[in-house]
Amino acid sequence: MIHEKIQLYENRSDVTLTTYVLDDSAEMLNGKKRPAVLVCPGGAYLGCSDREAEPVALRFAAMGYHAFVLRYSTYFEGKFGELPFGGDMPVNPKSVHPGPVRDIGQAFLTIREFADEWLVDMDKVAICGFSAGGHNCAMYATHWHRPIMTDHFGVPAADLKPAAAIVGYPIGDYHIMFGEITDPVGQEISNAASIAFLGTTTPSSDLLDAVSPVLHITQETPPMFIWATAADELVPVENSTSLANGLARQGVPFEIHIFEGGMHGLSLADQATAGGLANLEPDAAKWIGLAETWLKKRFALELPVKPAWMVEMEAA
Amino acid sequence: MIHEKIQLYENRSDVTLTTYVLDDSAEMLNGKKRPAVLVCPGGAYLGCSDREAEPVALRFAAMGYHAFVLRYSTYFEGKFGELPFGGDMPVNPKSVHPGPVRDIGQAFLTIREFADEWLVDMDKVAICGFSAGGHNCAMYATHWHRPIMTDHFGVPAADLKPAAAIVGYPIGDYHIMFGEITDPVGQEISNAASIAFLGTTTPSSDLLDAVSPVLHITQETPPMFIWATAADELVPVENSTSLANGLARQGVPFEIHIFEGGMHGLSLADQATAGGLANLEPDAAKWIGLAETWLKKRFALELPVKPAWMVEMEAA
Repeated sequence: MIHEKIQLYENRSDVTLTTYVLDDSAEMLNGKKRPAVLVCPGGAYLGCSDREAEPVALRFAAMGYHAFVLRYSTYFEGKFGELPFGGDMPVNPKSVHPGPVRDIGQAFLTIREFADEWLVDMDKVAICGFSAGGHNCAMYATHWHRPIMTDHFGVPAADLKPAAAIVGYPIGDYHIMFGEITDPVGQEISNAASIAFLGTTTPSSDLLDAVSPVLHITQETPPMFIWATAADELVPVENSTSLANGLARQGVPFEIHIFEGGMHGLSLADQATAGGLANLEPDAAKWIGLAETWLKKRFALELPVKPAWMVEMEAA
Repeated sequence: MIHEKIQLYENRSDVTLTTYVLDDSAEMLNGKKRPAVLVCPGGAYLGCSDREAEPVALRFAAMGYHAFVLRYSTYFEGKFGELPFGGDMPVNPKSVHPGPVRDIGQAFLTIREFADEWLVDMDKVAICGFSAGGHNCAMYATHWHRPIMTDHFGVPAADLKPAAAIVGYPIGDYHIMFGEITDPVGQEISNAASIAFLGTTTPSSDLLDAVSPVLHITQETPPMFIWATAADELVPVENSTSLANGLARQGVPFEIHIFEGGMHGLSLADQATAGGLANLEPDAAKWIGLAETWLKKRFALELPVKPAWMVEMEAA
């Protein structure tokens, strides 16, 4: 495995791509390129959660795909800081839209740069995100081919094209995120998240339109796998169902799984990503197996009938 | 993740411990130690198969356990060399018993040395091996507390104690390995493997006794998970069933799963470890899920009811 942390911008240590690039072997793919999954953790655009980073990348790596974790621009510029309960929050321009979605584009270009060395099949790179990271992925899935990305990078859209998107309890429609949260802790997080990503707690309707992926789904949007829990109290589940409706309307292949129970932010919903028993949800934990099956329809490794060494041995 | 390759002996590059040590996070175990699994690839004591190394370690890492790959002493001193079809094979004293089983002991002592830095719970280190690697693990499971190990290292047996052993299509009884193979390729591999590990193609019955784990099972043997396929043409499945019988006689907890179909050397039996379609066996691939459930009975991460950050947030 090639495991390294790469800074995506020379003068910033907060935006990084961590590689989990699988070793090639003459006994297995023998120099053939592999698909990859780029993981975007959640964290309300305030930080990037460790629980939705390395353990998730390892799960995809264990499927036989290269994996990457992208720590994109967030308010606290890295890991979670202390939430500013009741305090003032000046705007951090780095974490405001379109910073975070462009970071995914920068990650794509970086993976492309090393694709021959790492043996990455650039036609099969999926993005996978959770919560705000799921929103970021859904934004990327609906904007990779638009001037906001292609003009910014000065590259053809094809260089930025994702093959699939997997999003867990994402924000799909920012209009659903306002005025529905009643508990004070949730409201505080929501306000902080708004300042982090929107630069204001009183966004215009136009701004909310601009950052709502559901309003930008086209036939250019890649196939999408969506999952969430109906019991999510932080991001209403309609964010997920509205994304599904949007994909259905455009005829984009998709799959959605809403599990009945489980809090917001379950990640893998098993011990590998748990900070406490509240993060264990055996039913919802089935999402990753369903995603594996779904991904395999597109990403299954191309194998010969017999391993190369067996053919050689039989010829000897 | 701390990912590095450590030489277990200063003057030898062939025996290595590759680490897949999970990152600690305040959001998850927050400084608490984790269980670990040490993976020993197979390869007939001629080499160590890549197919039974990194991808298997990643699968255990994805369960939330630290993982390690041990490349122990083999005839070709590292990766597979060309098989010596019809050629002469001088004995390589390094790969002859008890070299390989002592390498596992050396790996345990190395992990113990770094246990505080890596946050490894030394009371919960399992060994997992395949084929010859499964034999090596079964040998370790039945010899870790004996003078062949403790006198050699000059350490108390407790320092070398494995918590569990997971063995796939292992050699359990060396007496079953002779005189039963009829096809010439299998016979050639068998002869080469004998020279590699036994130092001769005509071993004495005493030597075969000494290296047959089934004859050394005691109540000191750790709980064992065994799996194999009935269709295995290289290592007769009786090697596995005889191990199970031996464990049953001693009252050692064990589990065994024999799948009907599938060639020798399936590893995970899915695309992550396949060199060709012949290595895919969806039925047998269920072994790793069964092993995960079995391991969790002993290794389940100890989690608080609520994550630490949630308790803090609710107090704020």
